[in-house]
Amino acid sequence: MTQNTTGTVHLIPVGLSDAPTSAWLPEETRQCARHVSVYIAENAKSARAFLKLIEAVRPLQEITIHTLTEKTTAGEIRNWLGSVRQGLDIGVVSEAGCPAVADPGARVVAQAHTMGLTVKPWVGPSSILLSLMASGLDGQRFTFHGYAPVNPAERAKQLRAWEQASLKGQQTQILIETPYRNEAMFETLLQSLKGTTRLCVARSLTAPEEWIQTHDIAHWKTQPKPDLNRKPAVFLFLAQS
Amino acid sequence: MTQNTTGTVHLIPVGLSDAPTSAWLPEETRQCARHVSVYIAENAKSARAFLKLIEAVRPLQEITIHTLTEKTTAGEIRNWLGSVRQGLDIGVVSEAGCPAVADPGARVVAQAHTMGLTVKPWVGPSSILLSLMASGLDGQRFTFHGYAPVNPAERAKQLRAWEQASLKGQQTQILIETPYRNEAMFETLLQSLKGTTRLCVARSLTAPEEWIQTHDIAHWKTQPKPDLNRKPAVFLFLAQS
Repeated sequence: MTQNTTGTVHLIPVGLSDAPTSAWLPEETRQCARHVSVYIAENAKSARAFLKLIEAVRPLQEITIHTLTEKTTAGEIRNWLGSVRQGLDIGVVSEAGCPAVADPGARVVAQAHTMGLTVKPWVGPSSILLSLMASGLDGQRFTFHGYAPVNPAERAKQLRAWEQASLKGQQTQILIETPYRNEAMFETLLQSLKGTTRLCVARSLTAPEEWIQTHDIAHWKTQPKPDLNRKPAVFLFLAQS
Repeated sequence: MTQNTTGTVHLIPVGLSDAPTSAWLPEETRQCARHVSVYIAENAKSARAFLKLIEAVRPLQEITIHTLTEKTTAGEIRNWLGSVRQGLDIGVVSEAGCPAVADPGARVVAQAHTMGLTVKPWVGPSSILLSLMASGLDGQRFTFHGYAPVNPAERAKQLRAWEQASLKGQQTQILIETPYRNEAMFETLLQSLKGTTRLCVARSLTAPEEWIQTHDIAHWKTQPKPDLNRKPAVFLFLAQS
């Protein structure tokens, strides 16, 4: 048996909603997260809320939280990870969902690989994956785009280009929007895509008001608009040949 | 309060390895799965192993398992789901990981939406998502392709086309291979991609022999080959501009 004298970079998912942790976090993920004393977080405030929720073994003021922003330099990340070589475990958390997916955490993970550190991804909720599972759209081939352009003309053009790509590769297209723009995004999807294209709207995943429906665009146009205002949502679509 | 008289189609992830369920399944997912009496499964044998592992509340012989194959007709799926309208809950499970992602389960979910049934995705392990988190590659834009072509010339050509797409869209490319071909796939990746392209190999996720490394192709060529033979693996790469 060899003794592992270096620490591990733990990638720890956090919740998507106020649901109790037992609904979305495996017990071993929780136990790991409770014992980590240094975190790299997208948002220190939400990281503290998470640590409180999982009942961290140390008082919050004894847990170091480094905030990762666009201004964080590679040197700072290297410094933060330096202690892992001395045997310390570090946790990486996003503001919601899985770190390093649709958030800036990948920079930390890339640096960890460069330094030869062990990276451990833990199981937890991802709105992208949950919505893909629940969409009934093609899960054998899919693309996540992040955000569409904000400018209305560019946005419509981009959505149609993704619809073409979807048709060509029979590939589900996945995008997100900032919650206060969700209803406008839904309208643009209805106006921009073909009537036969199937659209899934997945709202408030893991929350009591979770709501997931998939219809073709022509059918969506006959339905009352879903209430998406200021609620997190994922949009997925698949063009029909 | 309205009473929900119809059942729910529960999308239940199963394990990727022999690790204990507490390592990869939230307690509420487990409790839901324990109580479901009708399953639609990609593989009945592995579904029974899962039901044993989570300690299903009924004896296995009292749990109905419908096997979903390519030959299953739309009419059969409609019949299976018919009981959900009468108030019965149905579970959908894959052979490994999340149902309806990189498996045929999406047909069931699509039919459920057509019938207006409630679909509930549960949190659990996905090798695609875990490997993406741990890769340090771009998690803001990514594409999952499933399998590459088997024919060597077509395969190399396809990998280079995906590398071009990765460069153009700064998009991480994700693919899988049947375990006995993993070592050949790794060789083809090394031979087909540019020296600067970053490749992540994620092997045996959630198992004790989990092993995840990301290097550029030039660096991989200087390293001993990883042992991937007959072990599940995900390959991810990102071209550098």
